[in-house]
Amino acid sequence: MPLIGTTEFFKGIGPIPFEGNASDNPLAYKYYDAQRIVAGKPMRDHFKFAVAYWHSFCGTGADPFGPGTLQHPWDIPSDPLEAARLKADAAFEFITKLGFEYFCFHDFDLVREGDTLLESEKRLAHIIPYIREKMEASGVKLLWGTANCFSHPRYMNGAATNPDFRVVARAGAQIKTALDATLELGGENYVFWGGREGYMSLLNTQMKKELDHLGRFLGLARDYARGKGFTGNFFIEPKPMEPMKHQYDYDAATVIGFLHQYGLQDDFKLNLEVNHATLAGHTMQHEMEVAAAHGMLGSIDANRGDAQNGWDTDQFPNDVAEVALMMLTLLEAGGLQGGGINFDAKLRRNSTDPEDLFLAHIGGADTFARALLVADRILRESPYPGWRRQRYASFESVAGRDFEQGRLTLEDLYALAHTQGEPPLTSGKQELLENLVNRYL
Amino acid sequence: MPLIGTTEFFKGIGPIPFEGNASDNPLAYKYYDAQRIVAGKPMRDHFKFAVAYWHSFCGTGADPFGPGTLQHPWDIPSDPLEAARLKADAAFEFITKLGFEYFCFHDFDLVREGDTLLESEKRLAHIIPYIREKMEASGVKLLWGTANCFSHPRYMNGAATNPDFRVVARAGAQIKTALDATLELGGENYVFWGGREGYMSLLNTQMKKELDHLGRFLGLARDYARGKGFTGNFFIEPKPMEPMKHQYDYDAATVIGFLHQYGLQDDFKLNLEVNHATLAGHTMQHEMEVAAAHGMLGSIDANRGDAQNGWDTDQFPNDVAEVALMMLTLLEAGGLQGGGINFDAKLRRNSTDPEDLFLAHIGGADTFARALLVADRILRESPYPGWRRQRYASFESVAGRDFEQGRLTLEDLYALAHTQGEPPLTSGKQELLENLVNRYL
Amino acid sequence: MPLIGTTEFFKGIGPIPFEGNASDNPLAYKYYDAQRIVAGKPMRDHFKFAVAYWHSFCGTGADPFGPGTLQHPWDIPSDPLEAARLKADAAFEFITKLGFEYFCFHDFDLVREGDTLLESEKRLAHIIPYIREKMEASGVKLLWGTANCFSHPRYMNGAATNPDFRVVARAGAQIKTALDATLELGGENYVFWGGREGYMSLLNTQMKKELDHLGRFLGLARDYARGKGFTGNFFIEPKPMEPMKHQYDYDAATVIGFLHQYGLQDDFKLNLEVNHATLAGHTMQHEMEVAAAHGMLGSIDANRGDAQNGWDTDQFPNDVAEVALMMLTLLEAGGLQGGGINFDAKLRRNSTDPEDLFLAHIGGADTFARALLVADRILRESPYPGWRRQRYASFESVAGRDFEQGRLTLEDLYALAHTQGEPPLTSGKQELLENLVNRYL
Amino acid sequence: MPLIGTTEFFKGIGPIPFEGNASDNPLAYKYYDAQRIVAGKPMRDHFKFAVAYWHSFCGTGADPFGPGTLQHPWDIPSDPLEAARLKADAAFEFITKLGFEYFCFHDFDLVREGDTLLESEKRLAHIIPYIREKMEASGVKLLWGTANCFSHPRYMNGAATNPDFRVVARAGAQIKTALDATLELGGENYVFWGGREGYMSLLNTQMKKELDHLGRFLGLARDYARGKGFTGNFFIEPKPMEPMKHQYDYDAATVIGFLHQYGLQDDFKLNLEVNHATLAGHTMQHEMEVAAAHGMLGSIDANRGDAQNGWDTDQFPNDVAEVALMMLTLLEAGGLQGGGINFDAKLRRNSTDPEDLFLAHIGGADTFARALLVADRILRESPYPGWRRQRYASFESVAGRDFEQGRLTLEDLYALAHTQGEPPLTSGKQELLENLVNRYL
Repeated sequence: MPLIGTTEFFKGIGPIPFEGNASDNPLAYKYYDAQRIVAGKPMRDHFKFAVAYWHSFCGTGADPFGPGTLQHPWDIPSDPLEAARLKADAAFEFITKLGFEYFCFHDFDLVREGDTLLESEKRLAHIIPYIREKMEASGVKLLWGTANCFSHPRYMNGAATNPDFRVVARAGAQIKTALDATLELGGENYVFWGGREGYMSLLNTQMKKELDHLGRFLGLARDYARGKGFTGNFFIEPKPMEPMKHQYDYDAATVIGFLHQYGLQDDFKLNLEVNHATLAGHTMQHEMEVAAAHGMLGSIDANRGDAQNGWDTDQFPNDVAEVALMMLTLLEAGGLQGGGINFDAKLRRNSTDPEDLFLAHIGGADTFARALLVADRILRESPYPGWRRQRYASFESVAGRDFEQGRLTLEDLYALAHTQGEPPLTSGKQELLENLVNRYL
Repeated sequence: MPLIGTTEFFKGIGPIPFEGNASDNPLAYKYYDAQRIVAGKPMRDHFKFAVAYWHSFCGTGADPFGPGTLQHPWDIPSDPLEAARLKADAAFEFITKLGFEYFCFHDFDLVREGDTLLESEKRLAHIIPYIREKMEASGVKLLWGTANCFSHPRYMNGAATNPDFRVVARAGAQIKTALDATLELGGENYVFWGGREGYMSLLNTQMKKELDHLGRFLGLARDYARGKGFTGNFFIEPKPMEPMKHQYDYDAATVIGFLHQYGLQDDFKLNLEVNHATLAGHTMQHEMEVAAAHGMLGSIDANRGDAQNGWDTDQFPNDVAEVALMMLTLLEAGGLQGGGINFDAKLRRNSTDPEDLFLAHIGGADTFARALLVADRILRESPYPGWRRQRYASFESVAGRDFEQGRLTLEDLYALAHTQGEPPLTSGKQELLENLVNRYL
Repeated sequence: MPLIGTTEFFKGIGPIPFEGNASDNPLAYKYYDAQRIVAGKPMRDHFKFAVAYWHSFCGTGADPFGPGTLQHPWDIPSDPLEAARLKADAAFEFITKLGFEYFCFHDFDLVREGDTLLESEKRLAHIIPYIREKMEASGVKLLWGTANCFSHPRYMNGAATNPDFRVVARAGAQIKTALDATLELGGENYVFWGGREGYMSLLNTQMKKELDHLGRFLGLARDYARGKGFTGNFFIEPKPMEPMKHQYDYDAATVIGFLHQYGLQDDFKLNLEVNHATLAGHTMQHEMEVAAAHGMLGSIDANRGDAQNGWDTDQFPNDVAEVALMMLTLLEAGGLQGGGINFDAKLRRNSTDPEDLFLAHIGGADTFARALLVADRILRESPYPGWRRQRYASFESVAGRDFEQGRLTLEDLYALAHTQGEPPLTSGKQELLENLVNRYL
Repeated sequence: MPLIGTTEFFKGIGPIPFEGNASDNPLAYKYYDAQRIVAGKPMRDHFKFAVAYWHSFCGTGADPFGPGTLQHPWDIPSDPLEAARLKADAAFEFITKLGFEYFCFHDFDLVREGDTLLESEKRLAHIIPYIREKMEASGVKLLWGTANCFSHPRYMNGAATNPDFRVVARAGAQIKTALDATLELGGENYVFWGGREGYMSLLNTQMKKELDHLGRFLGLARDYARGKGFTGNFFIEPKPMEPMKHQYDYDAATVIGFLHQYGLQDDFKLNLEVNHATLAGHTMQHEMEVAAAHGMLGSIDANRGDAQNGWDTDQFPNDVAEVALMMLTLLEAGGLQGGGINFDAKLRRNSTDPEDLFLAHIGGADTFARALLVADRILRESPYPGWRRQRYASFESVAGRDFEQGRLTLEDLYALAHTQGEPPLTSGKQELLENLVNRYL
């Protein structure tokens, strides 16, 4: 059996070509041209697009009000290893046809969790080599791995922050195995999303104690992986709430403060997700700016929320204007630090055609590609960068520079204010700038 | 003229007695009994209730859709100094009648700002001694002072974070004067609320540069005040948005990270506001827990928001259940660090009777008093504290303690997990705890 | 086997006594005293408390981030009829021990849906008589029945509003069977919750057509049930969103307009849910006032949301202040029209003890009972009703009455305004009223 | 003095040309070409763009945290009539230079309100002829007039819904005068925005009574204007909240139900505002679909909100994707019924250059123009209309048609369901449709 062949499920669809703007083919890229050079490097290297194993191959469309609408052929076998191999066949076929170079996974995306730790490890030990063969055959790489320490009932009160130390230990074991798997597959990064690290009620929670445990736990994981020779990045993925009432990794600023507090700042960066940003009351560009300001803009989980719905809708990205602002920040920050663009997005529950999964990824990739082209043109051709610099020109004056460099006291400012007179009002030119961006869209 | 007399405005109302639960008098306290000992000290010392000069004596009921509904007699004189004295007369009459011991102010709450810096300073120099006399005559103290660096048009692009250094300098001068005024009046603390420190649009904003300026600026203010002998606390008051699209002092966690980044953590604590917490997506108890976890629970701005309205409604507190949870955290944290409970709340625009201001403060003070009594009983009489401790008992085991103290590696956790078997599910007992709290309300 | 006995699951818990305020027993009512006369009738008749079959006996704690944490013994048998009987045993034991008089169900709460319509009907035909025996043995009654036309994948694009007429027909068949079952069990009412009646995207939706179908469909259901002799109420349960992006039964006002448009207003009333109200941007009291203003305050789904979380958290009610306002409206409206208080609420995922289900219902029932006592006292003992009436006293004047009764023209108002002079400002006394309510809590 | 000349304020700016996509001139239209024929008529007729007198000529940038940043020269004269004439000079210069054909106003936008009703009427009687001359000289027309019955303190408890009948009468007088003014100026429509028609607290509110008053009041206004020969539309402008906690005209569905209840449905349609839609939890396209489904899509207030801020930010439209969806609905509904696109939007407080007002309107007009072109192409060139129709094709079958036309019973549906078998799952193709729209943007 060829390692990358055609499964029944995706038969007759793809591979997805780049056809450019002239085409009407919905199963082609109009903007995403992997080799096209933008701002000095190929689009593929700007993005490192990844497929999320969980949504694309494990998701079935279940929601709190109904079970899945999709019955994937690879979920039918009762033998977990056979099912896992079939799923991998479909996954690598899909990724390859899409023309992406990366995927991301949780440990038990790859194979169903067993009834015991030992059994789970055995299953992983079986499937990891199979995945590695697939990767080698296809050239697809692992952007990052992670462990699912939030779905199993044992984690209902948290994993690293569980009030029961036995669960903390159990989570530690799972993380160790997931780190091992990530290393074996040459994962470039490793992600922590603390889905149940938070609380349902403050009434039964000692927040300080739980945060200390989390800091300690992440340090142990880092030490272990570094000891094994892992040189990639650790990422924390902020999310403010859901499934818990409140999660500790609320947003970029919260996580960055936490990382510094527990001495993790040199090994960890952020994996920012669009829908998590908006649930926390921020734009994604804001979160990216915060991360970039601290040198921690690591990776992106690409999706979008619904401004009228208050939960994680995880829709595929399609707002070019929103993503163009993200790309402005990305380019000005010098790109992502080690990570890429992972489509942590899922089909709508009523999108049940096999081609829908292709269409969704195509739409997402084209949105990013188009946005990158827009941002690049704005930075190269428009007065935008100059205007921004000019707005802060007074800090190039002697006094402004002295202030920035700590050579002025409050009394110096007081004296300056008395001599300078009332400062003039200077328009922020927001509408001008918004129009400018629109004209490049 | 006696320094604390009766103005026309509040004539015939107050002083407000404590009458206890038997009374039907709406102009009496039912729960707030200043001398009553709770958890080892008088209620007054738990709270240090303060009246906010701005809302209570400067506010007129204006909103974005209409001008003020109140015409205070003290706002009539065109002479700013006469108006300021009349306002102070009314203010101290009100605070005294209410039986509160504290007030808080912004610089230009006390007297209208002048057309020039010099003129403004002259006005302040005139009114500060008058206020001091009032304070001495009444025994009312200054909980904290602050500077209004957000209303004047010059601050429309920010104060310390303004892209024009001249405005930064101007803000520095104003802060210096406000610090001087606070010192002269024996202010116990000094607050920074960065109303325009943030952005309207990321398109015209260099966030990192602005944050650096803010960190620098606060350091200058601290150094100046410390040099003048100020030994009180500096407080930052977080707010996520409004008036700006985004404000840098988003929430407790964000501010704490910022304070550490710029070396301000030893002098600054937090002044938390209920309505700001909810605008940031948090409960107030959450914000208090975060602050307490970092030893930064400084002071409270007491009010409440509206769960259906997305702006700062600044209503007077009246939710005993919400405040009881706050008081649980307050008592367990050992009280506020230097601050008090400032009623940063305003009358509804259509509450136009002079007695309404009394009624609102009475309702607020009674809410806190009742909540404190509830929290104290829960901590003293109920199984609540024991249950909470017990939940984390596994960290008193040898392995649990070793984990906490850094004596275990990830491999140790792995080994433990393999020997311990699947951890049992332990109910979080949230409903039991919620019922318990309710039974003490 | 006795029809109401003790299952293993609830062994040793209950029955739940009324012990009153002196008791510390968490498994007793402190406020809910079924026989106590309040406002002229026993508490039980004010409330008609019902247990929701789905949350309490079908729910397992699953959420979008993990499977269930509860494995109920009655879900173990692979034979659906055996499982259904065991579930009924547990359900009626629970309801009886709780001392409630009612339950509510969806068709396939009672027994697992079959693979075909025929098989499903057979299963229902088997279990309905068993349920009826249970009801007779226990005296427990059916507050309302409903059909689950949202979980099965066939309804992923809607039921009555599905763009495929075959699905509409299929939903019709299911509703017919559920109506029959409700009739057989003497159900007092029948509910429609349109979980998927709405849209995921306007791009694939003809809203007008779908609304017409919904109106038509509800009319058919009404005609059928009336033809069978059903004399109870039909209820629509508004919900603004979730699972769909937008649901047509958005809120009370929307549904009432819809019912009038399609001639359904004489047979249908509203079943209002607290958490649905807040998701729609309203307080529950608001929704109740809207319904009462149209004579459509039919029934209540009792639960609560989380002001910081934007999805349907369906927590058990515990906010006495919120429910007291609801009870004010309930008493002033003369009670519910045919319905009752159904606890459409679920345990937290980490509440895994069998007693937790009792504790949650006890907390909810006590919250309503206490709130009713508060509201009754406010209406009987306080100046509140008089103040409210007095506020509108000017409409008792000749001109005011003429206006109300349509005897004035705009020109008459104009003439009056010219003679009357500027109307005085009259305080709304909101803070006074809020304090008043608080003092009765 | 020429009636349309150049004021100092706008000197040297404009008129604004259409330059098309090749130009880099920020003071030119790139997309808005008034004469260009789209879908059978000139762009100008699709839009009837209007300038909002209040934001553009009365607004100063004040917000709840600071006074205005703009000092318009026309606000300087203390004589209200002189000030009003200067304001009109500037307004008509601006509208003319912009190339718009319409404006909208509240009564006291035109001239400051007087201390008495009589004085206010005198002032209006003075300025109305001046405005009419301006209109005639410029060709600018009045899209709609309205009365400001929300700013003055007398309306703090509502206007038509005020609990004091004297205020209701006073509002009636003001509406009469505003109707007269609208008639004199040939206004094509008349708008009611019930800014304070709602409540701050249900505790002091009899909702049913207030709604009855509102229904009565609007009927009187309609009767008066119709009696005077007004043949235009009356519009209600929904808004859910702000300034009040809750406003009765919550959203489109609520208002439509209300209009039918009070017999106003033949004279009233809706004036929908984008930011009001989003505050109510809806997309603007949703609100337009609801209005169109009832034949009430009257007019649009063009602006946008901020998805992260919970108040009415009233920013100028700039989201082409959002507006393109609106334009799809507009074109499919056959256009607006009598109204137009009124820029009910304001400059950011820190946009203080005179040109900023031009830039903002240019950006808004270009957004609508571009969106219209996109929607027109989608409807003409793409498979979108066909796909939508096809999705409902089953209702063209005999049974589907019978259902729609009321010839089937529930039992018929039951019988059909039993014969047809399980309906197949049909993908909603949401991602395909979203990609399609994006490719036309």
